[in-house]
Amino acid sequence: MAKTILDTVNSPADLRKIAPEKLPQLAAELRKFIIEIVASKEGHLGASLGVVELTLALHYVFDTPEDLLVWDVGHQAYGHKIITGRRENFHTNRQLNGISGFPKRSESEYDTFGVGHSSTSISAALGMALASGLKGDNEKQHIAVIGDASIASGMAFEGLNHAGVTNANLLIVLNDNAIGIDPSVGALKNYLTKARVGYKPKQDNIVEALNFKYFGPVDGHDLKSLLETFEVLKKIKGPKFLHVITTKGKGLKKAEEDQVKYHAPGKFFPETGELLPYDASKLPLKFQDVFGLSLVELAEKNEKIIGITPAMPTGSSLKYMMQAFPNRAFDVGIAEQHAVTLAAGMATQGFVVYCAIYSTFLQRAYDQVIHDVAIQDLPVVFCLDRAGLVGEDGATHHGSFDIAYLRCIPNMMIFAPLDEVELRNMLYTAQTGKLNHPLAIRYPRGRGFVEDWKLPFEEIGFGKARKLKEGSAIAVLSFGSIGKNVEKVLHDLGEPEAIGHFDMRFVKPLDEGLLHEIMAGYKMLVTVEDGVIKGGAGSAVMEFAQQHDHQLPITALGLPDQFTDHGKVEELQEKSKIDVESIKACLSGLLRKLK
Amino acid sequence: MAKTILDTVNSPADLRKIAPEKLPQLAAELRKFIIEIVASKEGHLGASLGVVELTLALHYVFDTPEDLLVWDVGHQAYGHKIITGRRENFHTNRQLNGISGFPKRSESEYDTFGVGHSSTSISAALGMALASGLKGDNEKQHIAVIGDASIASGMAFEGLNHAGVTNANLLIVLNDNAIGIDPSVGALKNYLTKARVGYKPKQDNIVEALNFKYFGPVDGHDLKSLLETFEVLKKIKGPKFLHVITTKGKGLKKAEEDQVKYHAPGKFFPETGELLPYDASKLPLKFQDVFGLSLVELAEKNEKIIGITPAMPTGSSLKYMMQAFPNRAFDVGIAEQHAVTLAAGMATQGFVVYCAIYSTFLQRAYDQVIHDVAIQDLPVVFCLDRAGLVGEDGATHHGSFDIAYLRCIPNMMIFAPLDEVELRNMLYTAQTGKLNHPLAIRYPRGRGFVEDWKLPFEEIGFGKARKLKEGSAIAVLSFGSIGKNVEKVLHDLGEPEAIGHFDMRFVKPLDEGLLHEIMAGYKMLVTVEDGVIKGGAGSAVMEFAQQHDHQLPITALGLPDQFTDHGKVEELQEKSKIDVESIKACLSGLLRKLK
Repeated sequence: MAKTILDTVNSPADLRKIAPEKLPQLAAELRKFIIEIVASKEGHLGASLGVVELTLALHYVFDTPEDLLVWDVGHQAYGHKIITGRRENFHTNRQLNGISGFPKRSESEYDTFGVGHSSTSISAALGMALASGLKGDNEKQHIAVIGDASIASGMAFEGLNHAGVTNANLLIVLNDNAIGIDPSVGALKNYLTKARVGYKPKQDNIVEALNFKYFGPVDGHDLKSLLETFEVLKKIKGPKFLHVITTKGKGLKKAEEDQVKYHAPGKFFPETGELLPYDASKLPLKFQDVFGLSLVELAEKNEKIIGITPAMPTGSSLKYMMQAFPNRAFDVGIAEQHAVTLAAGMATQGFVVYCAIYSTFLQRAYDQVIHDVAIQDLPVVFCLDRAGLVGEDGATHHGSFDIAYLRCIPNMMIFAPLDEVELRNMLYTAQTGKLNHPLAIRYPRGRGFVEDWKLPFEEIGFGKARKLKEGSAIAVLSFGSIGKNVEKVLHDLGEPEAIGHFDMRFVKPLDEGLLHEIMAGYKMLVTVEDGVIKGGAGSAVMEFAQQHDHQLPITALGLPDQFTDHGKVEELQEKSKIDVESIKACLSGLLRKLK
Repeated sequence: MAKTILDTVNSPADLRKIAPEKLPQLAAELRKFIIEIVASKEGHLGASLGVVELTLALHYVFDTPEDLLVWDVGHQAYGHKIITGRRENFHTNRQLNGISGFPKRSESEYDTFGVGHSSTSISAALGMALASGLKGDNEKQHIAVIGDASIASGMAFEGLNHAGVTNANLLIVLNDNAIGIDPSVGALKNYLTKARVGYKPKQDNIVEALNFKYFGPVDGHDLKSLLETFEVLKKIKGPKFLHVITTKGKGLKKAEEDQVKYHAPGKFFPETGELLPYDASKLPLKFQDVFGLSLVELAEKNEKIIGITPAMPTGSSLKYMMQAFPNRAFDVGIAEQHAVTLAAGMATQGFVVYCAIYSTFLQRAYDQVIHDVAIQDLPVVFCLDRAGLVGEDGATHHGSFDIAYLRCIPNMMIFAPLDEVELRNMLYTAQTGKLNHPLAIRYPRGRGFVEDWKLPFEEIGFGKARKLKEGSAIAVLSFGSIGKNVEKVLHDLGEPEAIGHFDMRFVKPLDEGLLHEIMAGYKMLVTVEDGVIKGGAGSAVMEFAQQHDHQLPITALGLPDQFTDHGKVEELQEKSKIDVESIKACLSGLLRKLK
């Protein structure tokens, strides 16, 4: 195969040797390279296709890595990774021991700040810029590239508000494509949309009101304009803001046409963009769809039900309720804090609010959960998708901490369904009028276990666990769907008489009656969860045992006290020793001890 | 004493019977009433004095409690409490079993939403407004009163951004007095300041850009203007925004002149505002001052030190560093999320950043602590003042959860000093170049224990505990300054030979070597902390014991699984059973068991 220009680019220094008129060709090659690899290896496609020209122009004009470049969220950073020395490793993207799907400091000096959650780039780049100033460096530029969905999140406003009163060499590049993962929402989006079509001179400029120099809008696929604009901006001191218009999925027709689907499309044919056919009909549904579809069923009968998602209609499957009941289902944008307090406000008026937030993103609204929901003991239902290990998105996205950070909150109940049917039944139970406290329902990413999930709704008793298997000596207490691994282990071991298995279902309140029985009747306990061990559900069981003076050995299986990188869920379970084989080894060891 | 108009006002219904021309007299009486009670009972003064007219006008024009009124933060709600049926109880403000210093739903139907932390009012009122709409009520108004410091916090922007695309009957009243607890900062504040002096017509209007109808600015002490404006606003559907200019401390000369001091001035002479004299020279310094002054000492010698506070220069005592090194100490406004990620950005450039945030407010930046600091393992130093029970501010302000929510985070170290000297020495240790991980230092509100705190700096070994007293059977492991209660107990009990006492200092990493010795050498353990038991330090000790198969009884003392209301710290310790008498009773009981 003939050598491409891209083949010669192992660093931005190489890039800068290329004549500017060759850059469009390089852009085409880079786009093709991304498409070809993501087509077979999967990953985030549309965002990176949209910023191919922007990526090249930034690295071409600015003196990276001396000038410091921060990509917000990082879905769009594939091109950046490829031209900063990771072209040959790019096929390992998101795989175990491969490169991360997000910028990561330990991976490259060009990845100045690790990202994954939105809206951190302005604060991070401003911190770097103020630090440069303190070092006496007034030449260096510090660049945050942020999308229009991300800049609407409160944290971004906080960064703008601070930056505007500094003289930091900060450049904010607004990558405005009118979409995050789902289409952008909110008043700021409407405002930006007007600016896109040239209303600017007649219109207020929020950015200038916050004391930034405003530039643009510029066509983000026009390399010449980008290069010229960045050459100008490079020489300007202080805070400045460039509004760039791009098209998500640019260069792949199908990706441009269905931007939501092609955010992360799975495998596809690189030439056409056509998705690889596969027969999903026989697979169990995803947990998120059981949530989304069950909620519609419930909302049909109960008009007090409201659904809220911060920018994840598709990812959470709240889209089904948004379609069926557009007035009662809200996408509030990337605004987890607002989402939670909004839910609290609605709950004060007697509504049953299902607030669907990924486990990792609820971290963004922790104070609101405590302060606005739990202190007031409002019966808001938090639906925490992506709890536990999420796989290829890695450390920034695992739902590792929710049990630990929620269980310390008074009034909060935490439910972890073993399977989709338990999820569905708790969604039902939460709206029967018997819910008197905040409730978090945590369930995993991906597909469930049951084909026939759409059974008649059944009420679940709050704080009631379920015995799955009787035993005599070792009691395994599992929390949530990781209990399926335990079931497999017991099956593999021939359902040993000594081992009992309990689907605890509630991390809080624990089923105290059952625990007393178990602790009196068994010789040792093993707890299994897919969250962190420190402060987790196993820890709750230990607290209970000590409080009631049950002295017996308790082995806690769960995520160790280190961040878990990316890889397949099964691979990561193995590393965390909560996979079938590890649990089997643990239980076999305990069985030997018994003898 | 002649009956005042105020004496006749037991509800807004009574208020509305008063002729409008009498309202200025009522305002004067209400102001006097607030001053007289706060002068002797203490509390938040300046904010409530500033909104006397606004409070009367809102309740006069709007049909509270049918129209729903939410006060942001709630420092300014004393007048509201007094005219909504709590005049006679107002002298119990902030006392144990008395009324709360903040609006609280369980206290009154006029307190539509419990507050305490800033910037929640827009989201809450919007939630109520959307709920009213779903109920088919299109007449009701929903009002958020928010200060200029609070509206600059990201969460408020999220609320505005959502509200602007709804047709909710939402009125946002911006109470612009150019100050929060300390003077407001940031680009938005500069923008608002221009609007105050009439730049509006020439200037962009951020609020209108977000699709609100903008009204004002109005003089917030001119009752006539307020009444007229609210009569207009009452009839307008959809989202609208009123800019009101007020003076914090209005009506008490000293409070107007020194707005920071008179935010919560302690006891004073009601006639003059003069503070009651008291001799502070002999008291130990506050922990916060030991922090602030020690940081200045360190910053003098180490130019890599940076300080950050989100809107608490005075409360955290970072003001000392801001005075001494204005370029290296930043007040970023009420922006905890930004503060933490800014710190992370600075840390990537080799600076030692002390990020001073109250324990309860760090909840606002939980995701940033995990995502931007801990995953990247950046050595940011979190200085968590007001950890543990804070007293009269109550449930919204206790630093109850930090141990539980931080200890589950990989890479995070947590240090809890027994006294000011340990605090000072850890501040020193953190900047010696040996800190390789994020570190949280949690210390309590109020005064310390040591008069001679300014000793030469000494390094503290990371993860090293300290034996305070040898024992033979019962080991008391205390975390932080609550250990002083344990010392008192042991003194009172005559330093019993059986009981040992360890100042653990680190919640994480635990001193594992010492713990092995203790667990092998003692018969039972008691852990003592001033945070929640669930997931707390005691829980960490239990996890360690189980992990290493040390089977022995462990009694965990700490905050129970319920929110703790307001009262004196000593009273609240008693309720939580971590006061001297409760610990004594616990240890005495265990001593009896030994025999």
